[in-house]
Amino acid sequence: MAYNTVGQREIRVDAVAKVTGKAKYTADFRERDMLVGKILRSPYAHAWVRQIHSEQARALPGVEAVLTYADVPHLKFSTAGHPYSLDPGHRDKEDRLILTDKARFVGDAVAAVVAESELIAEKALQLIEVEYEPLEVLTSPEAAMREDAPLIHEAKRNILSTFGYEFGDLDQAFAEADRIFEGEYQTSVVQHCQLENQIATAQVDENGRIVITTSTQIPHIVRRIVAQALGIPWGKVRVLKPCIGGGFGNKQDVCVEPLAAAMTLAVGGRPVRLELSREECMIDTRTRHAIKYRIKTGVKRDGKITGIRIEAISNTGAYASHGHSIASSGGGKFRYLYQVDALKYEPVTVYTNLPVAGAMRGYGTPQIFYAFECHMEDIARGLGLDPIALHKMNFVETGFVDPIGKNKVLSCGIRECVDKGREMIKWDQKKKLYKNQSGDKRRGLGMACFSYQSGTHPVNLEIAGARIVLNQDGSVQLQVGATEIGQGSDTVFGQMAAEVLGLPLAMVHVISTQDTDVSPFDTGAYASRQTYISGMAVKKAAEEVKAKILDFVWGMTDTPAGMLDLKGQNVVYKHSGEVLMPLAEVALQTYYDPVFAHPITSDTSSNARVNAMSYGVTFAEVEVDLKTGKVEVLEIYNVHDSGRIINPQLAEGQVHGGVSMGIGYALSEQLLYDEKTGRVLNNNLLDYKLPTIMDTPEIGAAFVELDDPTGPFGVKSLGEPPAITPAPAIRNAVLDATGVAFNRLPMNPQRVFEKLRESGIVG
Amino acid sequence: MAYNTVGQREIRVDAVAKVTGKAKYTADFRERDMLVGKILRSPYAHAWVRQIHSEQARALPGVEAVLTYADVPHLKFSTAGHPYSLDPGHRDKEDRLILTDKARFVGDAVAAVVAESELIAEKALQLIEVEYEPLEVLTSPEAAMREDAPLIHEAKRNILSTFGYEFGDLDQAFAEADRIFEGEYQTSVVQHCQLENQIATAQVDENGRIVITTSTQIPHIVRRIVAQALGIPWGKVRVLKPCIGGGFGNKQDVCVEPLAAAMTLAVGGRPVRLELSREECMIDTRTRHAIKYRIKTGVKRDGKITGIRIEAISNTGAYASHGHSIASSGGGKFRYLYQVDALKYEPVTVYTNLPVAGAMRGYGTPQIFYAFECHMEDIARGLGLDPIALHKMNFVETGFVDPIGKNKVLSCGIRECVDKGREMIKWDQKKKLYKNQSGDKRRGLGMACFSYQSGTHPVNLEIAGARIVLNQDGSVQLQVGATEIGQGSDTVFGQMAAEVLGLPLAMVHVISTQDTDVSPFDTGAYASRQTYISGMAVKKAAEEVKAKILDFVWGMTDTPAGMLDLKGQNVVYKHSGEVLMPLAEVALQTYYDPVFAHPITSDTSSNARVNAMSYGVTFAEVEVDLKTGKVEVLEIYNVHDSGRIINPQLAEGQVHGGVSMGIGYALSEQLLYDEKTGRVLNNNLLDYKLPTIMDTPEIGAAFVELDDPTGPFGVKSLGEPPAITPAPAIRNAVLDATGVAFNRLPMNPQRVFEKLRESGIVG
Repeated sequence: MAYNTVGQREIRVDAVAKVTGKAKYTADFRERDMLVGKILRSPYAHAWVRQIHSEQARALPGVEAVLTYADVPHLKFSTAGHPYSLDPGHRDKEDRLILTDKARFVGDAVAAVVAESELIAEKALQLIEVEYEPLEVLTSPEAAMREDAPLIHEAKRNILSTFGYEFGDLDQAFAEADRIFEGEYQTSVVQHCQLENQIATAQVDENGRIVITTSTQIPHIVRRIVAQALGIPWGKVRVLKPCIGGGFGNKQDVCVEPLAAAMTLAVGGRPVRLELSREECMIDTRTRHAIKYRIKTGVKRDGKITGIRIEAISNTGAYASHGHSIASSGGGKFRYLYQVDALKYEPVTVYTNLPVAGAMRGYGTPQIFYAFECHMEDIARGLGLDPIALHKMNFVETGFVDPIGKNKVLSCGIRECVDKGREMIKWDQKKKLYKNQSGDKRRGLGMACFSYQSGTHPVNLEIAGARIVLNQDGSVQLQVGATEIGQGSDTVFGQMAAEVLGLPLAMVHVISTQDTDVSPFDTGAYASRQTYISGMAVKKAAEEVKAKILDFVWGMTDTPAGMLDLKGQNVVYKHSGEVLMPLAEVALQTYYDPVFAHPITSDTSSNARVNAMSYGVTFAEVEVDLKTGKVEVLEIYNVHDSGRIINPQLAEGQVHGGVSMGIGYALSEQLLYDEKTGRVLNNNLLDYKLPTIMDTPEIGAAFVELDDPTGPFGVKSLGEPPAITPAPAIRNAVLDATGVAFNRLPMNPQRVFEKLRESGIVG
Repeated sequence: MAYNTVGQREIRVDAVAKVTGKAKYTADFRERDMLVGKILRSPYAHAWVRQIHSEQARALPGVEAVLTYADVPHLKFSTAGHPYSLDPGHRDKEDRLILTDKARFVGDAVAAVVAESELIAEKALQLIEVEYEPLEVLTSPEAAMREDAPLIHEAKRNILSTFGYEFGDLDQAFAEADRIFEGEYQTSVVQHCQLENQIATAQVDENGRIVITTSTQIPHIVRRIVAQALGIPWGKVRVLKPCIGGGFGNKQDVCVEPLAAAMTLAVGGRPVRLELSREECMIDTRTRHAIKYRIKTGVKRDGKITGIRIEAISNTGAYASHGHSIASSGGGKFRYLYQVDALKYEPVTVYTNLPVAGAMRGYGTPQIFYAFECHMEDIARGLGLDPIALHKMNFVETGFVDPIGKNKVLSCGIRECVDKGREMIKWDQKKKLYKNQSGDKRRGLGMACFSYQSGTHPVNLEIAGARIVLNQDGSVQLQVGATEIGQGSDTVFGQMAAEVLGLPLAMVHVISTQDTDVSPFDTGAYASRQTYISGMAVKKAAEEVKAKILDFVWGMTDTPAGMLDLKGQNVVYKHSGEVLMPLAEVALQTYYDPVFAHPITSDTSSNARVNAMSYGVTFAEVEVDLKTGKVEVLEIYNVHDSGRIINPQLAEGQVHGGVSMGIGYALSEQLLYDEKTGRVLNNNLLDYKLPTIMDTPEIGAAFVELDDPTGPFGVKSLGEPPAITPAPAIRNAVLDATGVAFNRLPMNPQRVFEKLRESGIVG
């Protein structure tokens, strides 16, 4: 099908705003006499708060309020940004208070100050004295799982969740195998490091409702969780989402908003700003779960996998957040890549006294695919097969039905992705070329594949909303509940609406700010759901507006709506394309016809009960400096089957960002902590090694565009996928270059050097 | 019918916000680096602008732009806040430019400055030199109508409009009469003096659209008119209406917004604030038309009117604004009070070199009813009848059909109003008591009646919109396009929605800010239309939401929606009132049911093609101090037939405000000007005699509540009516007290004293 704007490299609708600095972020919303909130954090990873002496702080001029556990509601809530579930058994783990009487990690919020200025607030924090009763610090899952370990939460054990799955007869599968491969793989704690730290402002409005402006991916969910945390009706909270400087899942958690709300309530509703510093953000928002995998796979001699067993131990840190679902979700998405008869997935997610792990781009898949795609390389090497051949032998086909979730794969372009990537990187030529290397610098090639989903159906509700208002000039406003957080969704939604309505993108005025009072309901930006799920709501709303327009023209002209179409800002005859009248003329009539006036809007909701699997592959070429242990990525290509691409430029941007994140995951990033005290050692961007543009090679992005039948315009997910497989592809390339298998992230120079020396490759 | 919240004295939804100062008005919206706009005004009432030397002003540090006629688009537009008409013959007179090259009144805007501060802007205005070529100044309609008068606009004559009407055989009617009464009556120029002066801020947003925050009654119309004035697509303008400090029709004109928009365009889109001072507001917004009437009436001996001829000369000032429709509209509303067989109404509206007259509470009716109700008193006295008897003999009855507009009166409570007022003031007792007075202080009684409409159908389109969103807790948001400007409409709309949905008012969150991007379309606050017209849209939206809720419950319970109702936050069985389930439970289900989730909203529009006549009477008792000419209003009662009253407290508030305005009109207010130069002499609240609370007696308000079949819950208009008849009632009371007929407004001490002396009553 030929489209006009869909598929075009349209310039982002917010491009000019963002490059000129006109775009308004939460920090730009200042009120007169706005107060500043600051948090007092525990220096202990595990300790009871026995007493808080805050008299001095309260007496400091300019201090408006000091809050402790005693001053906030004692309603446990979950910070995880999932839709509410009517089924109590399916709700997120409620283990959190606004301020705690028990510190569970170094940095846990035990008190807070609201003051006239940041300086006064900081000073007041210093004046608060807290008496702690320290407890044993548990930083490793192994320690936390000990029978006699102290309990971090009120529960029988420190285990948050063990939700896995199993199908087929694994014993038989292993018995039928020619070879059994086993391996252990371990990922590290990394942090989102999104540009804009968590920040929220809160105030009580003139009607007694709490108004929160916040940098969030999930405004409608923030509304609910703040209300739950405070124990007030949900309708009493209003959440505004302005421009957002990135989230990557870190803002799919409700980290600062309940405290901000409690702060404004403590000062009679005056506006309060609660902004985390980078240092705070790195310890008290969320991190990516470090997961250890033990994998056992049975394989036929030709490479056909007979069965897989994956055990995983996930360190979720001090609070549940998304922890109960991340290991399970990663395992769920993994199921769509390989056709195997027997698979057992046994994850254990464990509380420890570390910063809280939560949602992060890929939501458990970068971990499991790191482990399994390393493992696949190991199998290929063990069998003497080219990894591409091994992969192809085991990929699912279109029509595959997941034995657990019963979702059917309606489009699957993984083979095409692999073929394209293989050509792009010149796999076959280079593989030959690099066969017998010597010298200090060795080159190698690696690849890794993934499967992903588009949204969360059927695990969670997938509801999205859109509203379109037709203006008198034929332009429209588009309101979505889904959130632009930097990824470009407003542009893509605008293109979708423009396509249906026969308009240029410039005539779709996308309302980028979500306001839970008036924005259509949508659960927000996560799970790579927006283009696929929320896009359908946009398309539905646009189709409704189109139908109303054509019906109106039917009334005006007695030409049946079915004979008409919208094209180039005109109402045209469908069969000939001949212009019947300008859209603006109809629009004027809808507003001002003395009898038939009825301004056209659509205010709709879409409850998706479908899911589309997206696929992709990373091909990487590296050069390893044996003398320094430095791994340089020479070339890297991600090829994606994400269905039809609405905007290739934005899609490439997603890939570039995701791959760069994957490179950091592979080679340099790790949040380090003291194993004894649980204190984070590198809570800043100087010591935490985020790759800069100087560390980032040219990134190649390509797409295999198969229309998925369930997605609007044939789309599937693309938001998170690019970040999934760079790490294993690079690891496999390093293995290819050096013969040494690195089964632990990150592969920074020190580790690489040490392991190379261990392996005897370098002296 | 028994209602829960409708009819209750609910506290205004914005009461707390307004008394605590939390409510945000346009002036409260500050942006960083906001610039200030100022206007250079002509000192001549009529002059060509030949040259503007602005180099010095431009060179002043801190001046960002100087604008003249040459710098703004030359697209003539109308400022009148009427809905756009598809019929070019029915559009408002387009005679205005953003900045003019011909001054038409003292204060006409010839240039403007945008600067960093008010001080710099003021200084810059002083540095601009303008060369004028003065023309003859025309301040009276008589002068302006001279054949050889200079033309104020490009037209054949200085006459803006002569649109009147005629029915019946007037010659025959006069021939059949026993007596012919003739009289001349004259009203003065007054000003709205709303608390908040005109103010707008404008900026270009990140998407290149012009965003205007403004103190307006008509945000959607402002959007159109700004776009028309600038010659850009209407969708490129976004208008926000925050809290408004009163309008009274003065903000049914687009006075400052096009210039504010031109200012921001002149400074690269930076935010600019254009705020008029009280002095500017009093000369360059709008005034009430001064109209001279000559009335001739034929009457039978018993008081039955046989025919009426009314000639009117209306002074509209320098630009058309609403001038073309006000005299005609007043005459149109007048037709619904008396049943006469022949009536001829001949208005002439004339341009002069005075400040522009426009819409003001009552829109032509305070003038015509002043004239005619004085005239009725004169007739009663001439015939020796009690004026009440004369009125009753001539009132229309329910079922009356207007011979011109064909509107039918479906409810008419004027007789009941008169009876009630007569009792309240103790008419009969006091009339006897005051029969033979002597001494320096004389008391008298007067009364005057009016008819009014509810909205403007069929003259203009009456379109209104409302959107309701059902929250998870069973509360709702209500968005209306209609505008709260202080009159209490948000509360009344909230009550209507609450009534339909079985909610307490506190659970209806009324969004008071209109934003043309997302607010439903509505033409705004004027013509006393909102409760009647926009109320219907609110009721419709609420009924839609209710139907959706009950349908959803049908799905949940298999109980047909028709058996169900909403009451007390519950879904109940209609026949028994038994609770089926809490509304909040249904609401949760509409959001989160895995299959049937579909958040409930209604986004609707109502195009009213009805009009309901409202009626009322003022009874006044005065004491005239013959020695000083001071008239004191001892008692004053307004009794209204405005259909059902949604909120008696707010209704009484409307009456108190309107009567107080009417007292000022009667006794003290007048914008004075120099007849030669056209310069206003009292452009401030020291010299312009607005009554203070010390000048205002207790005002009695009462209602005759007949349900009108066409209004939501039976309502009719009440906004403007209270201001219509205080002036003639007071005049008739003064006549009753002194025997002297004052046929010119205002009756201030000087005039009263002079005329009393003239009449020989006092030495």
